[in-house]
Amino acid sequence: MSVVPGALFTDLYQLTMAQAYHQLGMGETAVFELFVRRLPPQRRFLVVAGIEQALEFAAGLGFTGADLDYLAGLGRFSRGFLDHLAALRFSGSIHAMPEGTPFFADEPIVRVTAPILEAQLLESRLMNIVHFQTLVASKAARCVLAAGGRYLVDFGLRRAHEASAALFAARAAYLAGFDATATVEAGRRFGIPLSGTLAHSFIEAHASEAEAFRCFACSQPGATTLLIDTYDCRRAARRVVELAQELKRLGSGHGIGSVRIDSGDLAAQAREVRAILDAGGCPEIRIVLSGGLDERAIESVVARGAPVDAFGVGTALDVSADVPALDMAYKLQEYAGLPRRKRSPGKETWPGAKQVFREYDADGRYTADEVRRHEEGGRGEPLLNEVMSAGVRVGPQPTLATAREHCRRQLAALPAALRSLEDGGGYPVSISAQVRAEAARLDESLLKA
Amino acid sequence: MSVVPGALFTDLYQLTMAQAYHQLGMGETAVFELFVRRLPPQRRFLVVAGIEQALEFAAGLGFTGADLDYLAGLGRFSRGFLDHLAALRFSGSIHAMPEGTPFFADEPIVRVTAPILEAQLLESRLMNIVHFQTLVASKAARCVLAAGGRYLVDFGLRRAHEASAALFAARAAYLAGFDATATVEAGRRFGIPLSGTLAHSFIEAHASEAEAFRCFACSQPGATTLLIDTYDCRRAARRVVELAQELKRLGSGHGIGSVRIDSGDLAAQAREVRAILDAGGCPEIRIVLSGGLDERAIESVVARGAPVDAFGVGTALDVSADVPALDMAYKLQEYAGLPRRKRSPGKETWPGAKQVFREYDADGRYTADEVRRHEEGGRGEPLLNEVMSAGVRVGPQPTLATAREHCRRQLAALPAALRSLEDGGGYPVSISAQVRAEAARLDESLLKA
Repeated sequence: MSVVPGALFTDLYQLTMAQAYHQLGMGETAVFELFVRRLPPQRRFLVVAGIEQALEFAAGLGFTGADLDYLAGLGRFSRGFLDHLAALRFSGSIHAMPEGTPFFADEPIVRVTAPILEAQLLESRLMNIVHFQTLVASKAARCVLAAGGRYLVDFGLRRAHEASAALFAARAAYLAGFDATATVEAGRRFGIPLSGTLAHSFIEAHASEAEAFRCFACSQPGATTLLIDTYDCRRAARRVVELAQELKRLGSGHGIGSVRIDSGDLAAQAREVRAILDAGGCPEIRIVLSGGLDERAIESVVARGAPVDAFGVGTALDVSADVPALDMAYKLQEYAGLPRRKRSPGKETWPGAKQVFREYDADGRYTADEVRRHEEGGRGEPLLNEVMSAGVRVGPQPTLATAREHCRRQLAALPAALRSLEDGGGYPVSISAQVRAEAARLDESLLKA
Repeated sequence: MSVVPGALFTDLYQLTMAQAYHQLGMGETAVFELFVRRLPPQRRFLVVAGIEQALEFAAGLGFTGADLDYLAGLGRFSRGFLDHLAALRFSGSIHAMPEGTPFFADEPIVRVTAPILEAQLLESRLMNIVHFQTLVASKAARCVLAAGGRYLVDFGLRRAHEASAALFAARAAYLAGFDATATVEAGRRFGIPLSGTLAHSFIEAHASEAEAFRCFACSQPGATTLLIDTYDCRRAARRVVELAQELKRLGSGHGIGSVRIDSGDLAAQAREVRAILDAGGCPEIRIVLSGGLDERAIESVVARGAPVDAFGVGTALDVSADVPALDMAYKLQEYAGLPRRKRSPGKETWPGAKQVFREYDADGRYTADEVRRHEEGGRGEPLLNEVMSAGVRVGPQPTLATAREHCRRQLAALPAALRSLEDGGGYPVSISAQVRAEAARLDESLLKA
């Protein structure tokens, strides 16, 4: 069954609210902002991702005849409202931080300005897109910091949460600095380099490991990777040396490019295997580690000085295992020119259309952010840019490669304190005096209402 | 961008291995089994789900011309192999536990018997499908046990991991006993009842909460739900009473069916709101709770005796927040008639094609399972049934409704000790003497190899 998320890929209440707005003639402009209420303790910063797909979604919003027939059958929607939906397109503007930008709690990363009915209809899918890719890009960035320049491959398809998660996890990880993915479809769609060779089942299907190695190497063009932990890593490494020497003598074009270790004490085995390969005259064979890795395991392997060239990261990346969801929200901040505020306990919002300003030190590293009313201006670089106007994309449309390069530069500009995986103090984000004053005014008027 | 997972929705190594099998002429039959290595400490049992979609995928496996063109462009695959893929269909058989069946560690839930190349090509997507729905159905079953018969609604779309996760989370939750979903597309595809009404933004877009309530109630047919925690629950509840009384007097057909509380101390507020509604002559208005709920929060609210009629469960359900991935594996157990075994540390498998036998007490509750060679037979009910033969579906094809009913009966038959959310001892699953003996024989022969 295919998954083609259309306009019905939304929460029912978006449609019931839209019907009310339509019926009540509430056509004024609303401003909604997408932000994270608080950072999870396991994250020092987050990385914006998914903006490209969110804009595609907004630009393509529309109800098909089949969608409208289904809605009509629910018996909840009036003919007039359904006719309105039939002609509906997104006509608003969108401001967003560029993909690959690190951000913090309370900072709007997307701002939607549109007739309230349209802005409301974006909510569920917009958050579904941006939340997931941001989640994975943020996790991937930690792996990138931990790996210290070593090659990183996304192995997470099988335990990603269904099909589209696997594809967009590959994209988000690549954006944040991963080098490749094992997911073939992600390679095709996004132009991400592919990586992958063989599983334990291939070894086990042969009468011996040595035969499996030889058969595999000779069935693939060029230099291949062999998986050496099915039975015993050291014995397998010696077999790799023998085979590599033999293939070199034959000069057939086949060869061994690397070996992968997928279980046990990875750092210790990497050292043993490196010694065997080097002693056997194969210093060129690289060592790839995988098997339940996350950024902490990578950091530990690197800290132990293990001779590792690459890491395959699967489940922990694709499901962002330690933080499988962010406290992300899409909230009404202004309607009909007036600021609005939610005051539910623990979920209070900062009212009004806002902008994030970032300041840098002389070395180009961030020093502090301030969230201000969007028209306030002042010091610092505004991070939200207009990317859609009157329902049409505006400004440069970065490719995935340029977004990845932007992210690389941004991670290099992180304050030193945020580069550690451990919690070591926060990053200063202030809310401007004007925004605070507006919130206080609203609280007062709401108490009177 | 649409997500239509085709044959390239796989890990690259499945294709490189397939090329090797093809080139080596390894066309013998393989048996792979899908199972969970160990239960996470937060789960007493798991619930099989996703079998229906897995079978659809297997039955439809095939490479399009565009798929083959992309693969050819990678420069890794021979013309002969790509021609082989062009004609490839899944021709094997599949045994599976019925969806909705509780299961435990080491128990195969799917067994694939097919030429090794075909069985290997199923791996990535098969696991991607079954892992995710099993993850969510297992989480949902815990919510169902905790809710003690109260109405449960899936609210998780926005923070589900991208589009297909939201759809299949709705399906898996419904299968496990949820009553409805807010995801409209899931309602359309799977026939799941829909639920949902309005968000805080609707309240905030109005000059006053009372006006928002009236406007919303009058814009929807029949009895609606009002969200009462935007500013102050008790004040809102009194407004609901006034509005409900007024709507009754008007006899317009509009009315208030329920109120939803989404923040703060849910149990305490439910009691206060219940008292206000009852005192105001509205005992028929139901109370719905939501806002960061999971099975433990539901259990706590129920244990405190709060007057609650329904729960909306979002993020914690759709991402299975406490256990976002299972240690699920798809492993080669037999090739060319010979049992196979992986011996990587911590990842050892039980060799051979197996069956799970479940025994029951006089009350119909499970007492113990045993994993045996599939031909062993013996006491107990065999849980794996043949559902595909020679690439074609066989046996009854349960609807989602019948799978849901099966799950309901299965949960009712759980041993009492497993019905608690807390860890209270395991469930006995034994590995038969024949399987153990086979594993020992293989270990011995592998040591000699």
